[in-house]
Amino acid sequence: MKEIINCAAYSQGNRIADVELNNVHEALKETNQFVWIGLHEPSETVLRRVQQEFGLHDLAVEDAHMPHQRSKIEMYGNSLFVVLRTGQINLEHHIDFGETHFFVGTNFIVTVRHGSSVSYTDVRLRCENTPHLLSKGQGFALYALMDFIVDKYFPVAQELEQQLEAIEDKIFKEKPTRETTEQIYMLKRELLEVKRAVSPLIDICNRLMRLEISCISTEMRPYFRDVYDNVVRINEILDSTRELLNAALEANFSLISISQNDVSKKFAGWAAIIAVPTMVTGFYGMNFKFMPEAEWEFGFYAVIIFTISACTLLYYIFRKSGWL
Amino acid sequence: MKEIINCAAYSQGNRIADVELNNVHEALKETNQFVWIGLHEPSETVLRRVQQEFGLHDLAVEDAHMPHQRSKIEMYGNSLFVVLRTGQINLEHHIDFGETHFFVGTNFIVTVRHGSSVSYTDVRLRCENTPHLLSKGQGFALYALMDFIVDKYFPVAQELEQQLEAIEDKIFKEKPTRETTEQIYMLKRELLEVKRAVSPLIDICNRLMRLEISCISTEMRPYFRDVYDNVVRINEILDSTRELLNAALEANFSLISISQNDVSKKFAGWAAIIAVPTMVTGFYGMNFKFMPEAEWEFGFYAVIIFTISACTLLYYIFRKSGWL
Amino acid sequence: MKEIINCAAYSQGNRIADVELNNVHEALKETNQFVWIGLHEPSETVLRRVQQEFGLHDLAVEDAHMPHQRSKIEMYGNSLFVVLRTGQINLEHHIDFGETHFFVGTNFIVTVRHGSSVSYTDVRLRCENTPHLLSKGQGFALYALMDFIVDKYFPVAQELEQQLEAIEDKIFKEKPTRETTEQIYMLKRELLEVKRAVSPLIDICNRLMRLEISCISTEMRPYFRDVYDNVVRINEILDSTRELLNAALEANFSLISISQNDVSKKFAGWAAIIAVPTMVTGFYGMNFKFMPEAEWEFGFYAVIIFTISACTLLYYIFRKSGWL
Amino acid sequence: MKEIINCAAYSQGNRIADVELNNVHEALKETNQFVWIGLHEPSETVLRRVQQEFGLHDLAVEDAHMPHQRSKIEMYGNSLFVVLRTGQINLEHHIDFGETHFFVGTNFIVTVRHGSSVSYTDVRLRCENTPHLLSKGQGFALYALMDFIVDKYFPVAQELEQQLEAIEDKIFKEKPTRETTEQIYMLKRELLEVKRAVSPLIDICNRLMRLEISCISTEMRPYFRDVYDNVVRINEILDSTRELLNAALEANFSLISISQNDVSKKFAGWAAIIAVPTMVTGFYGMNFKFMPEAEWEFGFYAVIIFTISACTLLYYIFRKSGWL
Amino acid sequence: MKEIINCAAYSQGNRIADVELNNVHEALKETNQFVWIGLHEPSETVLRRVQQEFGLHDLAVEDAHMPHQRSKIEMYGNSLFVVLRTGQINLEHHIDFGETHFFVGTNFIVTVRHGSSVSYTDVRLRCENTPHLLSKGQGFALYALMDFIVDKYFPVAQELEQQLEAIEDKIFKEKPTRETTEQIYMLKRELLEVKRAVSPLIDICNRLMRLEISCISTEMRPYFRDVYDNVVRINEILDSTRELLNAALEANFSLISISQNDVSKKFAGWAAIIAVPTMVTGFYGMNFKFMPEAEWEFGFYAVIIFTISACTLLYYIFRKSGWL
Repeated sequence: MKEIINCAAYSQGNRIADVELNNVHEALKETNQFVWIGLHEPSETVLRRVQQEFGLHDLAVEDAHMPHQRSKIEMYGNSLFVVLRTGQINLEHHIDFGETHFFVGTNFIVTVRHGSSVSYTDVRLRCENTPHLLSKGQGFALYALMDFIVDKYFPVAQELEQQLEAIEDKIFKEKPTRETTEQIYMLKRELLEVKRAVSPLIDICNRLMRLEISCISTEMRPYFRDVYDNVVRINEILDSTRELLNAALEANFSLISISQNDVSKKFAGWAAIIAVPTMVTGFYGMNFKFMPEAEWEFGFYAVIIFTISACTLLYYIFRKSGWL
Repeated sequence: MKEIINCAAYSQGNRIADVELNNVHEALKETNQFVWIGLHEPSETVLRRVQQEFGLHDLAVEDAHMPHQRSKIEMYGNSLFVVLRTGQINLEHHIDFGETHFFVGTNFIVTVRHGSSVSYTDVRLRCENTPHLLSKGQGFALYALMDFIVDKYFPVAQELEQQLEAIEDKIFKEKPTRETTEQIYMLKRELLEVKRAVSPLIDICNRLMRLEISCISTEMRPYFRDVYDNVVRINEILDSTRELLNAALEANFSLISISQNDVSKKFAGWAAIIAVPTMVTGFYGMNFKFMPEAEWEFGFYAVIIFTISACTLLYYIFRKSGWL
Repeated sequence: MKEIINCAAYSQGNRIADVELNNVHEALKETNQFVWIGLHEPSETVLRRVQQEFGLHDLAVEDAHMPHQRSKIEMYGNSLFVVLRTGQINLEHHIDFGETHFFVGTNFIVTVRHGSSVSYTDVRLRCENTPHLLSKGQGFALYALMDFIVDKYFPVAQELEQQLEAIEDKIFKEKPTRETTEQIYMLKRELLEVKRAVSPLIDICNRLMRLEISCISTEMRPYFRDVYDNVVRINEILDSTRELLNAALEANFSLISISQNDVSKKFAGWAAIIAVPTMVTGFYGMNFKFMPEAEWEFGFYAVIIFTISACTLLYYIFRKSGWL
Repeated sequence: MKEIINCAAYSQGNRIADVELNNVHEALKETNQFVWIGLHEPSETVLRRVQQEFGLHDLAVEDAHMPHQRSKIEMYGNSLFVVLRTGQINLEHHIDFGETHFFVGTNFIVTVRHGSSVSYTDVRLRCENTPHLLSKGQGFALYALMDFIVDKYFPVAQELEQQLEAIEDKIFKEKPTRETTEQIYMLKRELLEVKRAVSPLIDICNRLMRLEISCISTEMRPYFRDVYDNVVRINEILDSTRELLNAALEANFSLISISQNDVSKKFAGWAAIIAVPTMVTGFYGMNFKFMPEAEWEFGFYAVIIFTISACTLLYYIFRKSGWL
Repeated sequence: MKEIINCAAYSQGNRIADVELNNVHEALKETNQFVWIGLHEPSETVLRRVQQEFGLHDLAVEDAHMPHQRSKIEMYGNSLFVVLRTGQINLEHHIDFGETHFFVGTNFIVTVRHGSSVSYTDVRLRCENTPHLLSKGQGFALYALMDFIVDKYFPVAQELEQQLEAIEDKIFKEKPTRETTEQIYMLKRELLEVKRAVSPLIDICNRLMRLEISCISTEMRPYFRDVYDNVVRINEILDSTRELLNAALEANFSLISISQNDVSKKFAGWAAIIAVPTMVTGFYGMNFKFMPEAEWEFGFYAVIIFTISACTLLYYIFRKSGWL
């Protein structure tokens, strides 16, 4: 896969030209246009090139090298550096995390994708199809990309909710097992990871919609408020899933105990039933000279019939009182 | 059901005319009157019409399309966009959630109902019957509607409290069962959902009673403070119900263990009683030549009587010490 | 019981005259005096009369009708509306909640008692006995009443602490029972209710000691700080009682398990002891032709003595190792 | 013990004269000196005398009468009233709580000790030995006393930590007992009490190091920051002890369950071993005419040997698999 | 090991001279250079010397004597005093805590190492190799050292994560044991200790990147923001490890209960199987004159075969239903 996915100049919302990375400084001279560059795991050479063309801060470029960072927003003079952790559900119903870095300046936006994040070509196309919106500048491009990234978290949150529901079904409709406990734990682990990726986004959106940032027009604020709203909703879903998960862990535990209770009762019930023949045969096993019915021809059968009847009676009594 | 429930102009608190949606801009020209429109799941056409008539922001109208949003309040220039999640108890004692969106401007208020929310015709009638209050403008209409929506949450919170009390009765007066645990869990789930709907209302009321909002007269502030107060009370009910529910889950768990203890004790008690005949008959089942009473005519009966007496004695001892 | 308990005018800390409710506006004309009215569950007529005499806000008067509100403080123009939930221990060691509403203006204070709150006649008398303090105006009357209400919560908090101590005794000195668990739960319920009544008082006192309130002289601030201090102390007692209660619930649970352990051990111990005669008699119950001592005259007695000795030995071994 | 422990005037850090309480107003006339009075559970007469000499506020003096207050700091005009709860370990390793009140004005400091707090004579001596520091005025005396009081909480916190470690040893190295559970609970109770005494100190130090307080020179701020730092450290020790204590309670609980498991396994193992002779002797106890070895001379011994061997085998199997 | 590790003057990022501690005041006279001193557990003499040379505050120097402090940042006039707790993994996979103190002034930085912290010679060398960065002054040296210290916490946090994973494996793949519970507890203890060392760093970085500090150029702010970012990441790892650890404790507990359940079931299953021969032999042990097959030659064998068959059948039934 190539490093430079896309590199174009836009004026009044329309793509006016594809630009060579080395000629970007030419394009930047024009005041009423901006350059939008999309990179994918770029080499150090390309990143250094970008740094020189746009005059980026050392620390930001160093960060852009390495993925596995925290989502954050930072101002370096007039330009903005944003790191967003991306998350999406893959075909095996697992979550793939990636990362995208954004450099936004007065007339440019650079995106650097790391890991398994989805390509932004579609977002760019959609932006190019609404020139009246894209004419708001690189701020709108940033919004469109963030909105896209945040929207990808909705299916992630829903997947977690569905896994919780599957666990609920297991807990309340089936027997408690080791697997259920492990699944609850593993879901919690996954949830904490998603939460760690999502929660810093609240602060990032908050600052984008409140702070005076020279490279983003104030007109964009309602848009970032919209992204903020989505992030808050995802967060709320995660939080209540987490609280339910804790409750599920405890409910599961209660049911394990109830189930243990059931085992004890069942065991006690059967032990009582089995005690009957033991007791009866014990009596007739005694070596007394004079025992009633011992000499009776049908004594043996009578005892067996009596024992079976007593056991059956006990069985129904226990059944009715819920011990068996 | 029609989309446009009501569309009228009000002046000094009195309904002066029904207005056609297409002629609203005419009515808006009059400075000392306001237009109140009630919509129910409107089509895109109607919404676009409304947007044009009142000059609403794109993002707000997009939101108004889709229900299942979070309660929120947003300023777009001079107009206000409010989303409220509604909740009410239905006949089956379940909670129906709905949603209502409000657009409030300098001389208009538009309500958009989604889902199973109750009609606001009664609220409108009540407002029309108190012209001295409605003369405060569209701000009062917003207050009346919010008050109505918030008031509907009181029976919801009470329903949850009653369900908790029913669970308490089950826990402390009956045997612990799987069903109780499941009911506690399900009540917690419901409670979290209500909480998620209600808690953003605190912030919304707070902003209505504090912020300088041009389209709502400051005279209205005590009224929104009143709604705020109700929301805080509902929230407190929900919070203490939640805390009690957690305690109930733990109490239930304790009682399951005590109940398990009881089973163990009962089992041990009966096992001890049954051990008596086993032991006695064991002794007399030994094949010794010389055994006392073995040749005695009433030996068998003596042993039986002795055994029964011993068992009865044990039974009373265990009974007294609480093992049976 | 009459509705209007007391209605008098005060000047420089001295009660100068009893006033008829209908003539209050006369008394209000005098600049250097204030009117103090005490009502008890007043009828709508009386409340409306009061509203007219003092020019109170509609919403505040509506609230004053209905008890079962939340403690709160609200400014309506120059006058102050305060709602306080009262709580006191009754003769059966239960908590009675009541409510008192206060309207405070530039030269008046009106108290409206609801429910089982204690009469304020004593407070009034005490105030009248310290004219140098009451000369600070209606602000001092408000302080004296609040101080009285808050002081009533100390015995409430202490009652809860004592109930906790009683529960601790039960947990650590007696056997775990269903009743203990229920008592812990019920204490928690009561505690949450008290907490809900007390916690808003912190904010109320805070505002009285910080905000610029025209109808209360700034000289009064240290006094409200004093009430604040008491409320914070009550809150701290409630909070640590709550935390201890949670720990008690868990400790109780642990002890239930230990107690279950004890039952199991005891059961196992006795089962082992009883296994001895079963085993011994089993051996001598076998139908072998040649068995040692079977023909011995004292065989039977020897076996019994051996069995009893073995059992006694086992009993002491188990006793020592803590199983019995 | 006398009420007035010490009463002296200081100028430029040197003790210049002992003063009679009744002549304090003379000493206060000198501008460049301050008076330091130490009281111990003073009578009302002495306190009233002090109030008159220094012009203290009624409410502060009322508070100074009664101990069992909360730590707090209050400004009354130009003078400062500070209440500090003191705590120290006594010889029986228990915690004694006491209380000290401070009145600090432009040229005086009065300390009022209540309960089992340690005498401050040593602190005074140490101050007198560093005149270059004491020359900073009564603010330094306040610092020295607070520092002394806070330092006494370090051994308290360490005592709690040691008790926790003793409990850990009991939990992980010995058998779970009722006593351990009770000790955990009691330690938590003690910890909450200490926490309640210490946590308000953070706010007090914070205000001393930030607020503009006329009677304390700003030069003292780094010193109060130093006390603040110590209080925060004590608080952190308490907080992590609390969190570990909660974990210990749960770990204890887990181990109780594991121990129960062990009992069950042991019981099951022995029951299985005992089942062998029961089964074997049962077979040979049957009254069949034709039984193998029944007539054999060493049958009885053979069966006994076989049974013992089988039991021994089982014993080693169970031992290896961890059931015994 | 010597006390003074390093003592050099730097100008425009280059080391220009090694300085004697006693001649430092000479070097400080030059305006465009700064002195960087590295001390290791210095004696009081050396510290006093340093204090005189740089005019440090008494309290800061007193703190620098004693290790085992809390991480903190304090301003004393124009100079800065920073205490950082260091942590690193040693060869036995345990955590060694140490402490470093920093005095930073307008043209100097002094570091005082205590305990098992790593030498900073490497950091100094790295700084000297990037003179364009070191030319930013002593602020950069402080950044480089803090960055180094914070970076050392990453392997610490990862070690804790790995220990958690090892515990997870034990919980979900092996039998629950006492050791697992103890390991969970001990990991929590270690985690809380690391947390206590790391969490104050957030506030320290925050103040370094926000406050106006005269001795550190504002150019350094993005660098401290970078350190801040790392600290926040470490904190997040610790927090989610803690939450997972709590969940692990509960999951472990659930599995202990399930495992107890399994023991009970297994025990009950075997008891039922053993009950078969007991019952059968009981019947044939009765002393009736007329019993079927008693006189039959192969009766004994028939009974044995029947018993074994019944037991085997039961075994397979229990096996299938999961009781054995």
